[in-house]
Amino acid sequence: MKIYKYPERKIWQNLVQRPAFEREEISGLIAEIFESVEKDGDRALIEFNKKFDKAITSQITVSETELDNAANEISEDLKEAIQQAKENISKFHAAQITETGKIETVKGVTCWRENRAVEKVGIYIPGGTAPLFSTVLMLAVPANLAGCQEIILCTPPDSSGNINPAILFTAKLCGITKIFKTGGAQAIAAMTLGTESIPKMYKIFGPGNQYVVAAKEYAQRYGVAIDMPAGPSEVLVIADSRAVPEFCAADLLSQAEHGSDSQVVFITTDFKIFTETIEAVKNQVKKLPRNEMASLALAHSLFILANSIDEALEFSNLYAPEHLILALEDFDPYISMISNAGSVFLGNYSCESAGDYASGTNHTLPTNAYARNYSGVSLDSFVKKITFQHLSKEGLKKIGKTIEIMAEAEGLIAHKNAVSIRLK
Amino acid sequence: MKIYKYPERKIWQNLVQRPAFEREEISGLIAEIFESVEKDGDRALIEFNKKFDKAITSQITVSETELDNAANEISEDLKEAIQQAKENISKFHAAQITETGKIETVKGVTCWRENRAVEKVGIYIPGGTAPLFSTVLMLAVPANLAGCQEIILCTPPDSSGNINPAILFTAKLCGITKIFKTGGAQAIAAMTLGTESIPKMYKIFGPGNQYVVAAKEYAQRYGVAIDMPAGPSEVLVIADSRAVPEFCAADLLSQAEHGSDSQVVFITTDFKIFTETIEAVKNQVKKLPRNEMASLALAHSLFILANSIDEALEFSNLYAPEHLILALEDFDPYISMISNAGSVFLGNYSCESAGDYASGTNHTLPTNAYARNYSGVSLDSFVKKITFQHLSKEGLKKIGKTIEIMAEAEGLIAHKNAVSIRLK
Repeated sequence: MKIYKYPERKIWQNLVQRPAFEREEISGLIAEIFESVEKDGDRALIEFNKKFDKAITSQITVSETELDNAANEISEDLKEAIQQAKENISKFHAAQITETGKIETVKGVTCWRENRAVEKVGIYIPGGTAPLFSTVLMLAVPANLAGCQEIILCTPPDSSGNINPAILFTAKLCGITKIFKTGGAQAIAAMTLGTESIPKMYKIFGPGNQYVVAAKEYAQRYGVAIDMPAGPSEVLVIADSRAVPEFCAADLLSQAEHGSDSQVVFITTDFKIFTETIEAVKNQVKKLPRNEMASLALAHSLFILANSIDEALEFSNLYAPEHLILALEDFDPYISMISNAGSVFLGNYSCESAGDYASGTNHTLPTNAYARNYSGVSLDSFVKKITFQHLSKEGLKKIGKTIEIMAEAEGLIAHKNAVSIRLK
Repeated sequence: MKIYKYPERKIWQNLVQRPAFEREEISGLIAEIFESVEKDGDRALIEFNKKFDKAITSQITVSETELDNAANEISEDLKEAIQQAKENISKFHAAQITETGKIETVKGVTCWRENRAVEKVGIYIPGGTAPLFSTVLMLAVPANLAGCQEIILCTPPDSSGNINPAILFTAKLCGITKIFKTGGAQAIAAMTLGTESIPKMYKIFGPGNQYVVAAKEYAQRYGVAIDMPAGPSEVLVIADSRAVPEFCAADLLSQAEHGSDSQVVFITTDFKIFTETIEAVKNQVKKLPRNEMASLALAHSLFILANSIDEALEFSNLYAPEHLILALEDFDPYISMISNAGSVFLGNYSCESAGDYASGTNHTLPTNAYARNYSGVSLDSFVKKITFQHLSKEGLKKIGKTIEIMAEAEGLIAHKNAVSIRLK
């Protein structure tokens, strides 16, 4: 833990730095993987499964039988939980469907926007230490609500060549039936370039390790869009004297357990809460199964004593955390002061894990200070907004002169002609 | 002109190809420019002005006097035109301010989104053959409406070291007072890295040549966001037997005059309209001051005779044009069939130049087939949508079990604990 009592503003810029990402080192490898997938298609993916996931997979595509069997392999409790989470996520994201009405900017000049789904959407779900079926919900639910025509999912197989049944169950529940056993950079390459089994996608979503992140960045060279750039997960907790140290500690640790590179920041104005939260973190971490990872994350975590909640929020805005928890008695007056954050949790009972799983908000959020310039995933991420306009002859007459003068001043005479010829 | 009569579907994929962009060739140069700007700041920019723009500039910052004088250097007509365009653009973009109401997904669990402006926004306006003051309106108006705190503008000086007065006048009209004389990749580098005069920005907007495009792509390595990836400008016109060949030709040429790499596509179902439009293009192009550029663009333009409007729209959706003009008598039934386009112009009097300047819609739009996965610039481009949630103790009780079960199934026990500890 890195402890700072009333740090001076001049060191804030250093405190908000995230760990540097070694981009150049793996870029050669990513290019090679894309080349292999482009050249050998499915065969390359099968080889990569053997090499990286120690898995023998004769087929890349998950079979209908595998998909059907998944429901038998998980508990009824889990199925019900996934179903409840899906309902809440659907409810929140459905409310994001907006219609901008038609605007008559000038009589006879009508302009509006219409939403159109991104037609082909690829979802990546990592394998590894945690089977993130919750992320399937967070991406497939809005994709379906947006009306995406083709939604596919790639995820790496385990060493027996199987996919985690909770992932399969959730995908099927969300109507995704095209699921492919491939992970890492090669999965991103496959959704970008297409293979015999895997179709090319227009936009790729989902979390992953540094190889996946680098591959998504690389994929953009091929005209593919991605959800957002990524980095390690983050939480920043701001607590006042009415916060509960045990709760704060639990929230900090639920971030820390994600990985050794997780970013954990605690700020309070109250010395008692400060020391008790540190104590509670130390106690709670011992009992965690992912203790080792959480301890590594805690080693570089920040515990800051601040002069005021205003100051804490100023620091938070500079940091731009993925998750911001306001463990404050009276949080309302502070909401408007928040300028940079991915998702905000208000009060002592709004734990981050509520938003991670089941409250309804999306958990795919900007990290690495990207909360300054990116939003989290929402229904918007799955649509384009196309502008439309209709001008009557009268409408064009009303703004024609304006267009002609401006076009001429920009030296674009053909632009002017397009008006003049119509009004002649 | 490339003429295709009823082209078979199997060649469509070739027809929609855009010219390849030589990324690798200039990437070394871009890296060098960023390095220079990082090392030498303003001094590097002054050097680049001399080297690339043949301009002596002792000061990078536009002075108050220069800004004040601009109004005297342009005609009253132009000032009035810019003012009318600004009003229409403001009206259309103000209607994009949306409030998602609070959603109670489960009793005691309230979720919502709030907009927050991207705080620091940089606008790039190219120099060169056309002084794009219209683009200042398209970017500064929504930036102001969104509430961006710091809006700056970079544009290259002419060989006397001055900025076009229409650009200065428009910028001032939109409340932008921090304007800098620097262009090309070095301007993008300056807004990304900061110099003595130019502050670092969080998001960079604006068009430019291939160096600017490559620099904006490169800037993303530093955590900066950009409006969208870019390519040459495009129009696709679909005409039926009631279209006016002279109008269609004028629209095609207003795209062609942008540059030799402009993409111009014409599709009609009517043979008479087909031949007459080709004839009209050949006649009109002769009289254009930018005849040479337009002719080069026309050389690789597509003129397609199609079997039906449905088929034409299918082609258009595959092409995903920046601008789509439906020169159709009865366009209404076709609107819902449009899936990929930047901005759509309906009927015989909705010329593209209306949207380029003054109807109210934005002219910063996705090119290069990016209309499949990107929207044009709108108010949304200048805000982040932050999700908020508040759970009462009762609310957490209602969804607590779901969170605990899901977290445990994902192996994330600290996530589970954050709930359990609160409900104990």
